[in-house]
This record gives sequence, structure tokens and C-alpha cells, in this order.
Amino acid sequence: MSKVIKNGTIVTADRTWKADVLIKHDKIEAIGPDLHGDHEFDATGCYVMPGGIDPHTHLEMPFMGTYSADDFESGTRAALAGGTTMVVDFCLPAPQQSLLEALQMWDNKTSKASCDYSFHMAITWWGKQVFDEMATVVDKGIPSFKHFMAYKGALMVDDDEMYASFQRCAALGALPLVHAENGDVVAALSEKLLADGNNGPEGHAYSRPPEVEGEAANRAIMIADMAGVPLYIVHVSCEQSHEAIRRARQKGMRVYGEPLIQHLTLDESEYFDKDWDHAARRVMSPPFRNKMHQDSLWAGLSSGSLQVVATDHCAFTTKQKRTGVGDFTKIPNGTGGLEDRMPVLWTRGVNTGRLTMNEFVAVTSTNIAKILNMYPRKGAIVEGADADIVVWDPKRKKTISAKGQQSVIDYNVFEGVEVTGAPRFVFTRGELAIEESKVEARSGHGEFVPREPYQAVNRALSTWKEITAPRKVERTGIPATGV
Amino acid sequence: MSKVIKNGTIVTADRTWKADVLIKHDKIEAIGPDLHGDHEFDATGCYVMPGGIDPHTHLEMPFMGTYSADDFESGTRAALAGGTTMVVDFCLPAPQQSLLEALQMWDNKTSKASCDYSFHMAITWWGKQVFDEMATVVDKGIPSFKHFMAYKGALMVDDDEMYASFQRCAALGALPLVHAENGDVVAALSEKLLADGNNGPEGHAYSRPPEVEGEAANRAIMIADMAGVPLYIVHVSCEQSHEAIRRARQKGMRVYGEPLIQHLTLDESEYFDKDWDHAARRVMSPPFRNKMHQDSLWAGLSSGSLQVVATDHCAFTTKQKRTGVGDFTKIPNGTGGLEDRMPVLWTRGVNTGRLTMNEFVAVTSTNIAKILNMYPRKGAIVEGADADIVVWDPKRKKTISAKGQQSVIDYNVFEGVEVTGAPRFVFTRGELAIEESKVEARSGHGEFVPREPYQAVNRALSTWKEITAPRKVERTGIPATGV
Amino acid sequence: MSKVIKNGTIVTADRTWKADVLIKHDKIEAIGPDLHGDHEFDATGCYVMPGGIDPHTHLEMPFMGTYSADDFESGTRAALAGGTTMVVDFCLPAPQQSLLEALQMWDNKTSKASCDYSFHMAITWWGKQVFDEMATVVDKGIPSFKHFMAYKGALMVDDDEMYASFQRCAALGALPLVHAENGDVVAALSEKLLADGNNGPEGHAYSRPPEVEGEAANRAIMIADMAGVPLYIVHVSCEQSHEAIRRARQKGMRVYGEPLIQHLTLDESEYFDKDWDHAARRVMSPPFRNKMHQDSLWAGLSSGSLQVVATDHCAFTTKQKRTGVGDFTKIPNGTGGLEDRMPVLWTRGVNTGRLTMNEFVAVTSTNIAKILNMYPRKGAIVEGADADIVVWDPKRKKTISAKGQQSVIDYNVFEGVEVTGAPRFVFTRGELAIEESKVEARSGHGEFVPREPYQAVNRALSTWKEITAPRKVERTGIPATGV
Amino acid sequence: MSKVIKNGTIVTADRTWKADVLIKHDKIEAIGPDLHGDHEFDATGCYVMPGGIDPHTHLEMPFMGTYSADDFESGTRAALAGGTTMVVDFCLPAPQQSLLEALQMWDNKTSKASCDYSFHMAITWWGKQVFDEMATVVDKGIPSFKHFMAYKGALMVDDDEMYASFQRCAALGALPLVHAENGDVVAALSEKLLADGNNGPEGHAYSRPPEVEGEAANRAIMIADMAGVPLYIVHVSCEQSHEAIRRARQKGMRVYGEPLIQHLTLDESEYFDKDWDHAARRVMSPPFRNKMHQDSLWAGLSSGSLQVVATDHCAFTTKQKRTGVGDFTKIPNGTGGLEDRMPVLWTRGVNTGRLTMNEFVAVTSTNIAKILNMYPRKGAIVEGADADIVVWDPKRKKTISAKGQQSVIDYNVFEGVEVTGAPRFVFTRGELAIEESKVEARSGHGEFVPREPYQAVNRALSTWKEITAPRKVERTGIPATGV
Ligand SMILES: [Zn+2]
Ligand SMILES: [Zn+2]
Ligand SMILES: [Zn+2]
Ligand SMILES: [Zn+2]
Ligand SMILES: [Zn+2]
Ligand SMILES: [Zn+2]
Ligand SMILES: [Zn+2]
Ligand SMILES: [Zn+2]
Repeated sequence: MSKVIKNGTIVTADRTWKADVLIKHDKIEAIGPDLHGDHEFDATGCYVMPGGIDPHTHLEMPFMGTYSADDFESGTRAALAGGTTMVVDFCLPAPQQSLLEALQMWDNKTSKASCDYSFHMAITWWGKQVFDEMATVVDKGIPSFKHFMAYKGALMVDDDEMYASFQRCAALGALPLVHAENGDVVAALSEKLLADGNNGPEGHAYSRPPEVEGEAANRAIMIADMAGVPLYIVHVSCEQSHEAIRRARQKGMRVYGEPLIQHLTLDESEYFDKDWDHAARRVMSPPFRNKMHQDSLWAGLSSGSLQVVATDHCAFTTKQKRTGVGDFTKIPNGTGGLEDRMPVLWTRGVNTGRLTMNEFVAVTSTNIAKILNMYPRKGAIVEGADADIVVWDPKRKKTISAKGQQSVIDYNVFEGVEVTGAPRFVFTRGELAIEESKVEARSGHGEFVPREPYQAVNRALSTWKEITAPRKVERTGIPATGV
Repeated sequence: MSKVIKNGTIVTADRTWKADVLIKHDKIEAIGPDLHGDHEFDATGCYVMPGGIDPHTHLEMPFMGTYSADDFESGTRAALAGGTTMVVDFCLPAPQQSLLEALQMWDNKTSKASCDYSFHMAITWWGKQVFDEMATVVDKGIPSFKHFMAYKGALMVDDDEMYASFQRCAALGALPLVHAENGDVVAALSEKLLADGNNGPEGHAYSRPPEVEGEAANRAIMIADMAGVPLYIVHVSCEQSHEAIRRARQKGMRVYGEPLIQHLTLDESEYFDKDWDHAARRVMSPPFRNKMHQDSLWAGLSSGSLQVVATDHCAFTTKQKRTGVGDFTKIPNGTGGLEDRMPVLWTRGVNTGRLTMNEFVAVTSTNIAKILNMYPRKGAIVEGADADIVVWDPKRKKTISAKGQQSVIDYNVFEGVEVTGAPRFVFTRGELAIEESKVEARSGHGEFVPREPYQAVNRALSTWKEITAPRKVERTGIPATGV
Repeated sequence: MSKVIKNGTIVTADRTWKADVLIKHDKIEAIGPDLHGDHEFDATGCYVMPGGIDPHTHLEMPFMGTYSADDFESGTRAALAGGTTMVVDFCLPAPQQSLLEALQMWDNKTSKASCDYSFHMAITWWGKQVFDEMATVVDKGIPSFKHFMAYKGALMVDDDEMYASFQRCAALGALPLVHAENGDVVAALSEKLLADGNNGPEGHAYSRPPEVEGEAANRAIMIADMAGVPLYIVHVSCEQSHEAIRRARQKGMRVYGEPLIQHLTLDESEYFDKDWDHAARRVMSPPFRNKMHQDSLWAGLSSGSLQVVATDHCAFTTKQKRTGVGDFTKIPNGTGGLEDRMPVLWTRGVNTGRLTMNEFVAVTSTNIAKILNMYPRKGAIVEGADADIVVWDPKRKKTISAKGQQSVIDYNVFEGVEVTGAPRFVFTRGELAIEESKVEARSGHGEFVPREPYQAVNRALSTWKEITAPRKVERTGIPATGV
Repeated sequence: MSKVIKNGTIVTADRTWKADVLIKHDKIEAIGPDLHGDHEFDATGCYVMPGGIDPHTHLEMPFMGTYSADDFESGTRAALAGGTTMVVDFCLPAPQQSLLEALQMWDNKTSKASCDYSFHMAITWWGKQVFDEMATVVDKGIPSFKHFMAYKGALMVDDDEMYASFQRCAALGALPLVHAENGDVVAALSEKLLADGNNGPEGHAYSRPPEVEGEAANRAIMIADMAGVPLYIVHVSCEQSHEAIRRARQKGMRVYGEPLIQHLTLDESEYFDKDWDHAARRVMSPPFRNKMHQDSLWAGLSSGSLQVVATDHCAFTTKQKRTGVGDFTKIPNGTGGLEDRMPVLWTRGVNTGRLTMNEFVAVTSTNIAKILNMYPRKGAIVEGADADIVVWDPKRKKTISAKGQQSVIDYNVFEGVEVTGAPRFVFTRGELAIEESKVEARSGHGEFVPREPYQAVNRALSTWKEITAPRKVERTGIPATGV
């Protein structure tokens, strides 16, 4: 049974042209003029784009005895509703837990996913077992490893462990990711703020200034350079870490930066809201920054120093957020965004001219697929690719609201934002999931997408590092030791 | 009559995969496994890539009563021999000459071209006629205009004229290019050097220090920003102009930078050679720089702050160079490179791991086609594109030498450089032009490639500039004038 | 007849200590504990500092058939009232006018000066006469030359002229200064704004964006580097020009930057005021910028990339400002500040901890005296120095207002600003001029302060440039010319 | 009994003038024309400057069961011979050792010092005792604390401890110093190099690349910023850490950088010498870098982003160095330089025009005295100051050699360097110690120089940090906790 998307304009990361798209089963079968199939979907006035990929989500993430509110069911439904057809979630082993065992646990959560997914594996502790299991994790199609430089006493790893893990990544052709904030300093600042009675949600922002993020980004970059491996820095929120990335790239280092849609469009004034709930709902790490930082991030997207836009979707209900009344360090960190990323980025980016449509596709989908090495199966409108497609109606208007959203939480950090540009249709591996406001996502449809190691950039960098490796000076007549 | 390239690995700017390529007439007809056609070309062990595009050549350029030695015949043959299947040359109107008349003169030179070509139109003077004719030039398929900030008293335009022309470009959806060196300062330094008896070829380098280039690049960027138009800076040779580009891009400005293969690999020590001819043959503007600048340029290519690699091919014989004996300002500026650009870049870039193969394709072909708005007709391996294809043998070795080169000049600035990686076959619009060392380029085969204005980036920038344009403050009660 | 300042704490650019100061005639005679003299002035609780020096004023400046409102009488009285004991004004020759003749005209204006003064000579045109007279100007004690890169068609010089003049400065051991804005672009933007009906005072700000200033600063720096001479950039108002300065200094170039007290503390929102007069009164070049730029300037002062704080005092009455009703290009450019510079800088700088007291002295006095080569006659509390002294009461409070100010104009751009820190006594060459709010400035007391050329930095730079000058490559066997 | 230095030209950090200097006992009694005293010293043709201060030495430093070869006797004699009249050494408590006990041990070593000295106290471990004793250390006149970010398993402290100690410094008005190299990464790289058989002295350099230093500098800066305290980074050897310093200063942060004379003038090629001893004698941390880094450091000195020049004098004999045959990690780290710092800096800096004479005085003496808060007792030619004076003969020539040097070691890293500019006389607290090549240093003459906390910059920064401290948002209606 075939489907055809007709009369649309295809927009990919590299070009824009009018053509129909024929889908057979779960694949793109043909692209060209005047195609026909069993079902025809009218894309008149619309852009036909690769479905979005969110490289950074936390669905059903364990947290202090509870879980982040959106699981793979509501989370992937929200994704699809916003034009995103794949998510990459984080598998977080507990200290001393086997990576493989954790992976099994995470895999169990995905049975109700309605769109495709992959994982990043987190390195939350270090030891021979971790070293060994990393190879198996790569073999299972997960060649990307996350490292937390913050969350001291919990997920945080130190420089030693990070260097060891990055070297292991280099050897396995895998990509290390980091959450970049100096955990020691965040912990110390938090303690001081609480001691000073500064216990409200704004204290969370005070405890994680831009300099603290920039420092960690800078440190991770150096360690990756020494280990000879590319690096991916998640949720780049500020000029400081962005500057570290630019500085590294200008030395030929291979570093990627991921801003979130939240940091691109929301600012720190949210934390100063007089309503505790309002402020607490926006608590995430890193916190929102000011407009100067936003300008920096937008420029990074258009200039290529930042490559992708994510959500770090990690939704907690107001009730869960209230755990932190009287102590901001207990407010669960995270906000939603899966349903909103693409419409908000389109509205604030493409409609203003900050991004071209092609750049929009690149940062929401194609670049992610390339960096995570699943291109062009994902991230492309090309024959043979998975039919993950969004038919984007640039005239479609909507005011974002928690009412009617797919996420199960009771608010939305983008509440009231008016967007122009939203999906008319969304296909996930060939199945229609969204038709305007009608959500037909099918729970259980989503599948795991295995990825290969040794992406081209990894290999090139290894070559360069080999060529420029330290060379021993050959000497004769070395004296006897002085001892 | 069809051709098939079999058993190769296709390498494009965005991916690498095994497939055959079927060519029918001058177009790519199909891409896929197991294709067949009338003629089959074996690409076993090879990469099948879009033919190179050189965005910057000067063939048969008039100069002091003579012409640059390579014309469209030998020049395009050299291009093909090195895997380049299209050149973009510069049409240079004389002062007060009609742009259209000049274009006619340039067009006349192209009858023997053996590969496709396009033009950039130079703005060498300013007036209502130029303003008006720019529209016609764009209509004729040439939406890019070159501006010389150096060559005082000849090609140079001043800030006023540049701003006026850039504004005109913005209105026409065209792309301004600049040769960035401060012509006033170059002239004054040259005069001083000659007065000091510093008249050798090294004086040429002394007269054009990196700071002088960086200043001009910085100025052109500001003017483009004020005019609201993207900018393309040709022959970026040094950290100073590269820094200006990076700084601009980080503010969201749309600026492109083009290093030459010469500046990436040759350094200033060439000018200190004791052999006058050796030094004079390397005289070009900007001059070669030191290793630190080379590192900067390479990093620009991998990080994306520089996008394309050109040659500025403008070949003069030793005899022509000797015009400048006793006065370096009379040495004709220019070096060759058309045949060498791709093998040298592959050897020094891909073989060392500084660039991936995909990045190689991007900077030699695809990015150029995109920026100059002729993608994917050129710069792509995609169905329907022109069959400009190079089958690249990564094992093929060669020592570059003037002996046997296609260029008509009697030397080669890369003399003695050993390359690994060269074309096995080169196709230009479906015709086989090169088979290893056999050159079958057909004079007259090349055609003009018209290009459209209003590339996506131009349009996006215009939107942003409109949104952020100065807004008048509405006031009541304005006082009477004080006069 | 002697005077003693007793019980104060001396604060200089390099230290802070308790001592009395004995003045004999116009000089500092002694510094130490327990000094006595004919008149004693109690400095208990106060800081005894070198009198301020304003390196940038325009008193009685000719403008469109009228003059700036404050002349050397009211201007120097305002200076003294605010703790400033010397001003450096600009002599502006008309096109083709002899520098010496202009100097005579300017000198005539100074007869009523109540504090000491010097001049910078402006290079407003170029020719053999100017070249020759520059030597005489230096001989007369004026080794600093101003160049306007803006005010096209009036004061502006082009790159050629600037380079020639800078080279002449290098030879004479003089210091070039620049007003850095790209005059061509300002003119074109102004024209466009007016054409769009954008004729209010905010149009002035729109016509001179930070990028336009930064470009000119960058260009002047390159030209100074090529000429081998230090450079002083007046009224650095924004990050763009400051960045250019920092970048230059980090290459070892000798560049100074002068922010104004206005740009440090007032921002662009003033131009959006609904009251035309309010906005027009703030029209100056460069215009006020936003807070980000202010932060940049403050950091420059504490880090040493910016060295001095001036006023560019050039006061016009509201009536004069109204000349520009309906056409912002006709609003006379300039604001006052002489009386306010030191109290405002103290309040916003020292009281907030952005500057130490020593840094305050450095940027208001000592650095200026050093750069302009009149240290320690001026700018120091040292035996033998001119007794230009301010006894600063850090507790003294005042709300700045046009009411009661010394300037003759009818408003004050700092109206309503509350300052803490103001002079208790001000001495000019040993004479008491100010005692709290009592002004006893004596018209005619001020004298011209001649300055020497070849400041230490000029000499060092010349040495370095000589050592690193281009060296001719000696060759044999140079071929015959190709002609 | 008085002494007069006659006929010289006094050169201080802020000016240059002809005057005699009268010394009475250990102090400068008078400065002026035509002074007389019991002994007259002819300074005709010479510059009379404040004696040098070396802010960074390790005399008789315990190391692996032995000691650095120069103790306070030979070390201070070497200092005086080169025009340096004060050293600041590092007191290094063993793990868990009382700071006060360590201080006693260090104090014991100083009995034979022939010039004045002070200490920095190292924080090598952390605990309540250290926290408490820091106050006592400050009370004893030592308000500066050193932190090692390298030497893992020995002196190294982690971020937590550093933050705690920096906060303590802020509270005590003290200045933290750091040795900035990432110790974890150095250890890992060293291990890898040794494993690869890369065990020669060049391995030392390979194990400590510039990026590793830059990272640590950047991290220390962030931590100091969070703690609200100025920071002093010792032995800044490369552009990477210098860049971090500049970036910080441009944000208004108060950071000082100290290049060594070695890094300014010697480069990494020394480690590639075929003679093992030659290379090993140059082993120090950070290692020598290339010319690009040297240019950066020189520019830092003239632009003010780096403030002082030190030696890190820590001399080991060839025999001691040979402990590391077969394992570079066992080569004792350190080189000499006390006798050579000033002549080499003068020759390479002042004689080339890279520095003015005043800047020479600033970076070798005055800035150090200011930053370490003992100005103008030290670092000044001013009445009442300690008579630590060098009479500098700018014509005096010398070829540096181990033969005849004051240091007890058997080589000199500057062997063969020709200097022009050396002391004619050196006075230490009024006593003549050096007369050209005659050394009359008197062992035991040197005294401890106590220093005060709360330098002006500390106080200013504290004010600024207080003003900009996080403010709690006052809220009503805070919800009940969600738990
Ligand atoms: Zn995170
Ligand atoms: Zn996350
Ligand atoms: Zn050119
Ligand atoms: Zn060219
Ligand atoms: Zn001005
Ligand atoms: Zn002015
Ligand atoms: Zn150290
Ligand atoms: Zn040390």
C-alpha cells in the first residue's frame, strides 16, 4: 500500500524544489513530478521536510523515587504532534550498575513509543566493567556516550574518568557528549545561597552562572582534544560555552554544540516571576539566560558553530516541582518542549529571517542524523530513506497552551506563544501520525534505530592525531642515571 | 547513448555510499545498485564525486597590453585534467565601459572552453549606467558582482561606491564579492619600498602585509552589513581577514570566505628564494603567508567559517613575469593552479585527516554551487543534475611538474609536490574528458551556466534587516527650529 | 606665600598614603607629615589627588556660523568646579588654512581661561604646507594631531592622507588621534534615513551604528601600524572599536582608547525620548550605546585596554540644537560634561568597586599626562609638579542639575544624577579656585602647557619597527627584463 | 653614614628624569639635583632603577629526598648579581602539615639570605586547620596563597578545595595564586607516553601541551570570579592561558599573569636537542613553547594583560636531573634564572623596543610590589622607600655562562646569550652588594618583608561583588511542598 505526498515543495538541508514523494511501506520509494499511489496527501502550499529529530530527551527518567512525567508514550506523541519523528533518549546507569543491565531497563520503557528512537549511554561511573561494556553498547548500535560534569554526588564524573572514557570513545569510534557545568562550584554556590536564605527558584539560576557552564565546556573540549575524539556539548545555553566551542573549532578541533529551543527563546526573567510555580516550572540546567546569550546562540546556528536544536524534554508536573518549595536544589530539573520545538524555531527563526528554511531542516533534523551517524536513513528526503516526513504548513497558526497539549503535564513553558508554521501531516516510517490537529500516533509503532560507530569525522580526526602524535627523539650517549 | 560508472563509492558533501551512476546525454539519469548502459566505466576502488568547481579564475585576462597566458582553451583543459568541471571567471569592464559590452567581450573568449563556465561581473567604476546595467547582468544569469579594494588607479572602488553597489546587490538579490586589500596603503607601501631600493619580488609581499588584507575584509563586511547583503571575500589568505569573517559570522552576518589552494599549502619563504624567477613566479595578491596563517585557513575549512577553495588561476609566463625586473609592482600578479587544486587539497587535506572526504567535496564543489546558486544542477550527484563527475582514484600518485601540464606556462608553483589521489575519469556534462593521464577534453564543449538571484540566504537576510530596520520615534510638540 | 593641604590622604595613580602637601607659588614644594605654611586647608576625611585633565574639549568651537556655547571662560570654570584643572582642546584649521594661522586663532580664545590648557592640532586637509607646518606645530609644544574619519565634505580625511600624516607623526615623534567613524557610510545612511522620513534625533543614532565606528577604529589602527606610530582613538563608545583596540594591543601595537563619561553612563534610550529637545540635546558623535557597550568600556578601564576618560565637551544651547528640527544632520553635535566627569565617574566607578581610587586618578589625570607627554608636571602629586590639586570629599553629595552649573547652556545631560564624591578644594597652579560650592576661578589665570615629542612609547615603537623592517633579498643572476 | 648615587638618570615605572639619590642607612633619604653624602657612586651614563623583585623562586626546595641546589645564600647572591634585590619564595607544607610549622621551617632557611625576601604560602591540602591558620599566616605578613592544579598525588588541590580556599582568601583580603595545568590530564598523558616508550626529556613537553595549561588557567579564573577574589596566575607560558586571562580581564575580572623570562626567550626546540643533559636541564613546568607563544607573551607585557616577569628559579644540578634518565617524570622540574632575568629582559625587550624602560621597571619590580602589596616600600625610587636600587649600565656587555655564575649549578639555560645592559651597582637596603662583576653580597643581610592584606583591588572587587550579589525574589503565596 503506497502513499503520495503531492503538490508540495520539498525542503531539505541542501535544497528546495517542487516534487511529489512516494512512500511504500516505511520507506521513501520515489521523489519526482506527478507521482501516484494508493493514498494521496495534498501538500499544496506546504513544505515537505525530513521529520524532526530530537537528540536530547529524558522520557520516564527516574528521579528521586519518582519519574519524569512524560514517558515514551506521551513523549513520542508530543514529538509527532510537533513534527518530530525521532527522539534520542539517555540511558542512565546507576552507580556500579552494568551498562547492559541499564540498557535493558531503558529498552523496556520504549514498548509504547509511537515514533522511532535511539539512546545515548551515560557514563556515570568508571571501572573495568564500564570500559569493557562500552564496546558491547557500541555493538548494540549506540556509539554515543554522555558524561555529566555536574550533579555532584550523583551522575558527575571527574576529569580523570572523563579522559579515560573519552579515550575509550576514540578507540571505539564513538562520540562523547557532555553536560557542561562545573559540579563542584554549582554545589558550593547552592550551599551558600541556601545558607543565605536564597532558597527560591531564582536561586537555581544564581547557582549556575554562565561562567560555570563555560568553564566546564572549555575543560571538556581540552580533554577531548587530548583524547583525540570529537565532542558534542549538550544544551549550550550561553555565550561562554559557545565561545569555548568557537575557539576550539577555530583550532581545527571537532566540537559540536546543541542549543535548546528554550534557551533560544526564553530568558532569565522567568525566574524572577512573583509566582513560585511559574518560576519553578522553568527550573532546568542550565537555566535560561539573557537576550545577549540568545543572540549568540542564534548566530551560532546560522554561522555553523552550533549545529543542532534540541529540547532536553524532561517534564515534571507542578506537583513534582513543588518538592523544591523551600529548597531550590530539590526542584526537579527539566522542562518540556517536544511538541513546541519545531513551530517555535520556525516562527522565531525562519519567519524572522534568522535562518533559511534549509538551515531549519539542518538544525532540527539533518545535522543531528549526520552527527549521530544515521544519515541518510534519518534526516533526509531521499529514495530509500525511512519515510519520516513532516508536511509543514507555513501559514498554520496556533497559540501554544498546556490545554490540549500531548504532554501529560499541567503547564507549558511556552504558554501563550503564538506560532505561524506547524505540521499539516506527519509520517513516521510511512504511517500517518498527525493530520493537522488530529493525532493518530500509534503506540508501539516506534522502533529502535541502531547507529554505526566511526563516523567520518571520527576517522579523519584519528588520522590527524596519528600524524601529529609526539615523536620520540632518538639519542645516543644518554648518561647514566644520577641516582 | 548512455554511460554507467560502476562499482564506485559515491561521495557527496553529505554522505558516502556504494552505487552506480547512469548518465544519459548530459544528465545524471539514475543512481543505484547494478545499473547498466552503453558504456561502462569501472570505478572499483574509486570515489565518484561531483566535478570540482573553481569559483575564481582569470583566463585570457587583459593585462598591461598583454593577456594572462591560459585562455579558456588551455585553462578549462587544465581544470578537467585536475577534476574540475566548471570555472567561474571574472568579467572586468574598463573604466566607463558598459557592463554589457564587457560581458560580450568576455563571452567571445569562451568559444573554446571545454568545460562549463559562468562569470562574476566586476564593478570597476560607478554611475547610473552601472546601476542600471546591473539588473540586466543579473537577468543574463550573473547575480554576483566583484569589487576590488586594491589596485588603486585601476580597478579599485572606494567605500562610497562599494556601499552603493552593495545596496544595489541587496535590491537585486545578488551577491557582492570583494578582493580585500587596502589599496591606498598598498600603493603607499609599494612606493616606499621602491624608494628604499626594495624592488625585488619579496617587495611585493612586504607591500601587502596581513594587516592590510584584514583591514579591508573588515571594512567590506561592515559595508555589507549596512547594505543588508551577504558578502563573499575572495582569496582569504591570512588569519587577519579570517578573524574578521569569524567575528562577523558570530554576529549573525552572512559572510563567506574563499581560501586558495596556494595559500593553504605554500608559504612566504618562496619570496626569499635567491632565484628571481622562482620568487617572481609566486607573485600574486595577496601573497603567500606563513604557517600560522595556513593553520588558520585549514581550521576555517573544517569548522565552516571558510567555505570554499579556489585557485585565482591567472597564469603568466616567466617572460611575462620578467616585466617586473627592477620593479616588483610591474610583475604581473597571478599563479596557476587549476590542474592542481583538487589533488593537492586531497593530499594535504583528506590524506592527513584535516578534512573528511565529504568536506573535500563540499569545499571544492558543493558549497560553491550553493553559494553561487546553481545547486544542485552543479555540485551534486543527484538525478537530473548535470553529469559533471569525477571518478577519484585515492591511490593514484603523481609528482606535480610543469612538464606535461595542461597550462601553457613554463613552470608550476607546486613543482615537485607529490600527490596521492587524482582523477581516473572526468566527465563534463556527460562527456568523458579525462581518463587517467589521457586528456580528451573537447574544445567548444563548455557552456555558460546561468544562475538565479535571490539565493535563500539573501532572502532571509533581507527579512531580518526589514524586521530590525530603524523605526522613527513618533513625537508631538516638536519645537520650532532654532534658526 | 605658601599653602598647606593638611590631614588628607594622598591618592595617586600608584599609591595611597597620609601626608600633607605644601604648595609654594604654583608648584608642589613638599609632601610629608606635619607640614606648615601661610594658609592651611583642612583635608580631613578627604583624598588629595592630582587635578583632573580632560584630554578632549571643544570650547568656542566654530560651527555653522556660530560657536559652541562654552568658551574658555565658562568651560574652564566648569572644569575647575568638577575637579578638572587642565583641558586639551582641538585646533581645527579650515580647509587650506595654515596650521599656524589656525593655532593663532585658537590661542586668541584662551585669554580668559582659568585653568591650564593645551591643544591637539587637527589635520583637516593635506599638502606640502601641512607636512611642513607640522614640524613647527610640534616645536610649539603640540605633538599630537587629530584626524577625522567622519564629517564627510568637512573635516574628513581619507586613508591616503591619514597614512601620510601618520608617517609624518612617526618622524616627528608625535601622536596621531582619530575620530573613528566611517564618514562615507555615515553620510549614506543619513541620506537614506532622511529619505525615509526618519528625521528625528534618533536618526542621528541610527546613522552611526557601532559597526561603523568599529570599522574606522580598525582601519586607523592598521594605518598606524603600517606607519609605525602609536595611535590614540578618541571617544571609544562601543565594544566594536574597543575590540579592535584590544586585538591590536594583543599584537603588541601601541593603541590608546578614550571612553567618555557620557558613554560610560548614559544609553541609547535617551534618543527615544518623546521630547524632541531631550533627545536632541544628547546628539553627539558617536551616539550613546546600550548597556552591553557600557560594560565593555568599564572593563576596558579596569583592565587597561582603555586608558583615559574624557568629555568631548562641546556644549550647544537648546536653541542651537533646534537648528536640526526636521533634519537630524543639522543638529549640532556635542554635549557638555566638564563639571560632571569626575563626580559621575567616582560615583559610578569607585563607589561601586569597578575602579580603585588609584585607577580613578589614572584615568582622569595621570594616564592622560603620560600619554600626552606632560607627566609629571601634570597628573602627579610629586615635588616640583604644578600644584594642580583636587581635595576630594568622598562623602559630599550633590544632584546634578543645569541650575547652578558653570556651563552656560540651559540643560545638563546628567540632570538628576545623584553623585557622592565631589571636590572640597581645587587648586590650579597653586591658586585656590574652588571651595566646595564656592567658585573662585580666576579668568586669565590659565596658561598654555607645551609638551615634548618623542614620548617613550614612540621611541620604543620606532626601534621595533626599524628592527623588523623589510629586508631586501640579495640576489645575483637576476634575469633581464621580459619586456 | 650616607651614600649618594650621582649623575644618573632615574627610571621608574612612571617616569625618567635626571637626579641624584641620597641613601641614609637602609632608606632613600632624598632625590634631587646635586646631592652629597659620605660615599658617592658615579652613575654617569646609567639608569637608576628600583631593584628587581622576583615574585617566584624555590630556594632550597625539598624534592624527592633532596633539595633544589640554590639555597637562600647562593640564590639571593645570584639575584643581586643580576640586579634583583628581593625574592618571594614559596612555603610548601607537606600534606596535613600545619601551615605555621611549615612557615617556621622555611623561615629557618633564610638566615643566610643576602637580600630581602617574602613568602607565598601554598595550600597543599584542605581542612579546618588550614582554614584557621590562613588567618594567622596573613597576620604574619603573608597575604598570598599558592595553589597547584598539577602535581597529582602530591601538591595538587581539586576544584572544591580551590573554591573553598579562594573564598577564604576573599574574606581575608588575600591573593590566591595558581600553578595552572590540569593535573589529571598531565598524569594520564605522562603514563601514556611512558607506555609508548617516549621516556626522554621531550616527553615532559609532550605531557604538558598548551591546551592543558590554558584549561587550568580558565578554570581557576572562573573559580576566583565565583569566590569574588583577584587571581594571580604564575608562569603563564602560552597563548592559551594568556587568552583566558585577557578574556577574563575584558569582563572586568581582576586577573594577573606572570610570564617567566625563560618562556619569553627560549623555545621548545631545546627539548629536541640530541644531548640528553641539554634537554633535561630545560625540563620545567610548564615547558618552553614555540615562537608564536613568545610573541603573545611579549605583547601581553606591553599591553598590560600580563604584568610581571619572574624566573620560577628552581635550580637542579645535572646530577640531580639525571635522576630522570629513562623516565622523564622523574627529572626534577625547574631551571635557574635569578641572575639572568633582568639583563636578558633588557636585551630582548628594551633594546629591541618591545618595552620602554619604564615598562621594564614596571614588570621587573614595581608591578610586583603593587600586586603583592608592598609598594612603595619596595619597587619605587621615592623618599622613604627601602634603598633597594640598581644602577643599570645600558652599555655593559656580557655573554651569559655557567662559568662564574653565582648559582651553584653546573650549567645555565641561557648559556651563550649575549646581553647588553647589566648592573654597575646594586644596593640592597642601602648596602652595596654588587659593583660590576664584584659581588659583595653579605650573607644574612636579607630580611623578611611583611605585607598587608586588602590591597585596593581586593577591596574594590569585594564592593562590586556585594553590589551585584544575587537578590532573593520576595514572594507571597508560595505553594505547599509537593511532597
Ligand atoms: Zn543536562
Ligand atoms: Zn538532559
Ligand atoms: Zn584578487
Ligand atoms: Zn582574482
Ligand atoms: Zn569626535
Ligand atoms: Zn571631539
Ligand atoms: Zn609551578
Ligand atoms: Zn614555581
